[in-house]
Amino acid sequence: MSINYGQFGGPQRHSSVASQYGRHPAPPPPPTSGYGHQAPNYYPPPVPPGADPNLWSYFSAVDADRSGAISVTELQQALVNGNWSRFDLDTVKMLMGIFDTDRSGTINFTEFAGLWKYIQDWQNVFRHFDRDRSGTIEGHELAEALRSFGYNLSPNLLSQIEHKYASAPVGTFGPPPGITFDRFVRACVAVKTLTEAFQRVDTDRDGWVQMNYEQFMGIVLSAP
Amino acid sequence: MSINYGQFGGPQRHSSVASQYGRHPAPPPPPTSGYGHQAPNYYPPPVPPGADPNLWSYFSAVDADRSGAISVTELQQALVNGNWSRFDLDTVKMLMGIFDTDRSGTINFTEFAGLWKYIQDWQNVFRHFDRDRSGTIEGHELAEALRSFGYNLSPNLLSQIEHKYASAPVGTFGPPPGITFDRFVRACVAVKTLTEAFQRVDTDRDGWVQMNYEQFMGIVLSAP
Repeated sequence: MSINYGQFGGPQRHSSVASQYGRHPAPPPPPTSGYGHQAPNYYPPPVPPGADPNLWSYFSAVDADRSGAISVTELQQALVNGNWSRFDLDTVKMLMGIFDTDRSGTINFTEFAGLWKYIQDWQNVFRHFDRDRSGTIEGHELAEALRSFGYNLSPNLLSQIEHKYASAPVGTFGPPPGITFDRFVRACVAVKTLTEAFQRVDTDRDGWVQMNYEQFMGIVLSAP
Repeated sequence: MSINYGQFGGPQRHSSVASQYGRHPAPPPPPTSGYGHQAPNYYPPPVPPGADPNLWSYFSAVDADRSGAISVTELQQALVNGNWSRFDLDTVKMLMGIFDTDRSGTINFTEFAGLWKYIQDWQNVFRHFDRDRSGTIEGHELAEALRSFGYNLSPNLLSQIEHKYASAPVGTFGPPPGITFDRFVRACVAVKTLTEAFQRVDTDRDGWVQMNYEQFMGIVLSAP
């Protein structure tokens, strides 16, 4: 349930570095005495037996309505990039698509453990390739990241990916804007998904495929 | 510079209906006397000769930093769906890609006129197909919209589009969430872009194409 570095030919991990990209959720709020509440609203909920207390406190903080499960809205409100911009809905939906294994439409505590590790692993990848510590991935950093994952893409494709996932339109003037954390993850997963789907059709591995409209659209729509 | 109904085989327009989806920008704020400002900050700026005063007031309201041009951030802050959710960055970038004709990375007043009309036209399309007035497009409404645009997609593809552009993950339980205005526009433009790209490769029009990895990825990345 975490990023498979084997598939990506991934980078070294720097798990001791403090989190710079992707804020941890805020600490739990103090208990409130809501009007009209009959039962006292104990907070945070007691740690379930065997659960990691830190992970439980993160989960409880993200689960803002205390329903015991994290909705897409709660997840989007909790996840921000290094520049405090929120994760795109498409990235949040991609994450839920990977980790909502019981297809309930929400993330329970067990599923949250996998999600949390996945994000931390990607943070390490992001830090590794953000060579200039700018907080965003620029074109050459993106090229190096994808190359290290085993994707030797043409300059044209790399430029297209840079433009598509940049945090702003790339204008003629000024340096192109970089790619924030959440869009970097989505770009990498999209390249992986599309490349693997292409390879499944390219059974003789000659780099060419024959496909009909239905197959083509099905593959494109499967990418995050 | 506006949506071409000819190409889409588009719906009737209901321009007399009051705007329900896609809020107009807030009215201009009152003049402020900022600390340290030497010159008084007159607001709103005078209407340029020949400019539509209403359009100018909208433009000036969106141009929050009064730079004379609208950035991607300003546009994203101004555009919201009927449920007050913000437009996705990808939709805002798609709009700027269409209307930033001088490739400056920002939208000037001339470009804004086209952008504004495009959004209003799409609002009418959205209203037309949101049969139950729920404020979102559900699966059968999406199917009807795409069919009326000339796309006879299989149930599988329609379901994939519904899932991909829904405003939340589609869970096993409960009704699937609908598609908000900005994601509906992006879905329609994506289907149009991808279908036309496929047709350009399918020169003998038999519904099958042969393409290499570079072509395939190039087409996929060109869709918003």
